[in-house]
Amino acid sequence: MAALANPARRWRRLAVLAGHEEEAAALIAAAQAGRLGSGEPVHVLDRAAFAALLGEESVHQGWALEAEPLAASDIDDVLRAIHAATGRQIIVVLDQVTDPHNVGAVLRSAAAFGASAVVVAEHGAPPAGGVLAKAASGALDLVPLVRVVNLARALDQMKEAGFWCCGLDESATETLAAHDLGLRVVLALGSEGGGLRRLVRERCDYLARLPTRPPLASLNVSNAAAVALYELVRSESA
Amino acid sequence: MAALANPARRWRRLAVLAGHEEEAAALIAAAQAGRLGSGEPVHVLDRAAFAALLGEESVHQGWALEAEPLAASDIDDVLRAIHAATGRQIIVVLDQVTDPHNVGAVLRSAAAFGASAVVVAEHGAPPAGGVLAKAASGALDLVPLVRVVNLARALDQMKEAGFWCCGLDESATETLAAHDLGLRVVLALGSEGGGLRRLVRERCDYLARLPTRPPLASLNVSNAAAVALYELVRSESA
Repeated sequence: MAALANPARRWRRLAVLAGHEEEAAALIAAAQAGRLGSGEPVHVLDRAAFAALLGEESVHQGWALEAEPLAASDIDDVLRAIHAATGRQIIVVLDQVTDPHNVGAVLRSAAAFGASAVVVAEHGAPPAGGVLAKAASGALDLVPLVRVVNLARALDQMKEAGFWCCGLDESATETLAAHDLGLRVVLALGSEGGGLRRLVRERCDYLARLPTRPPLASLNVSNAAAVALYELVRSESA
Repeated sequence: MAALANPARRWRRLAVLAGHEEEAAALIAAAQAGRLGSGEPVHVLDRAAFAALLGEESVHQGWALEAEPLAASDIDDVLRAIHAATGRQIIVVLDQVTDPHNVGAVLRSAAAFGASAVVVAEHGAPPAGGVLAKAASGALDLVPLVRVVNLARALDQMKEAGFWCCGLDESATETLAAHDLGLRVVLALGSEGGGLRRLVRERCDYLARLPTRPPLASLNVSNAAAVALYELVRSESA
């Protein structure tokens, strides 16, 4: 729905499982609100052909959109878009998070809590394919996923634009809620195994932890991002 | 590690990928701290045999524990264990959450934020197998996963024991933070498609939402659980 409704998203065809044709037509009409003319490339597939497209195990609602990747956006685009914005602005930075489910779930939480972008290093980040898009649940068409060559350099750019960088780190002394982070916040999260790499960590103005407790004090990275985004939204309005 | 360290967990064998034998021995020693004697059933497998056991695509660190399910615990066990506890006590109830990744991730957050149990309906809940255990990241051996025949009846039992039931609902008027929920809280979450069923919803003393915003206001269920647990822990100590 989000991809169909996004004017910047180019798509090749909507594959529809036989029996879901009417829903598909309603879907297109609702999402595009008459923006496109007739003659949409909608392909009705039987069960076997549909399973061959998505995989036997996939969970779906009877349709699948084959789409082009969105045009890449960069840090300059993101900073330009929020240049004059008021209120708290949040950018999420993911350092070496490789699982597309996690990156997709972080995008979804970023959309729900109004973050401006999710930034990842080009090297090692998962592609914006079906797994990531499904976990993002529409957020891939709502929040820019910015791929940068050098995460440290990107952090410098954001800091020059007035952002403070807060790294999440289980071993930090203070909790996130104990910091006054200002209105422009970069929230940096590392991979579950390795945490934040040195070059990213060195650029953090603060390190903060979430109030979890042993023996299992670490959260899944997408859960940690959701909790931290919530705290930033909550404390802005508190 | 958590399963090996749990005296209540019976296991059949530790399968170790060839080349990881020393780590496996250290693992067992660290986890069991000498509790068991020698003669552990450790099987060293080559790459093909190990892949056949876990699946080609699985992400692992070179070992896999084949274990029996834990003995079932019930609501009475959970309520007995926290009968005299002080401070905020939290029980998470999942209504029709079927994805083992999600149930596992909720268990993990429940452990990290000190919840007493995660309760699911026997019918429709995923088995406590490898997928759930991996997503739980050890929490399956730390937080009871209670399966009940009738979720509504289980909620009645918890309410008789002094718990207030708060259901998360995107369409609720008030946010979770706006409620004073008392010291004993049941946090009820529904499936992403269907939300809370009527019989569960009717037993909620409060319905609350998280401060998310349109157009994509819904969070993944494990992220919603993590945020809500954080809010309950934060507001207790605030």
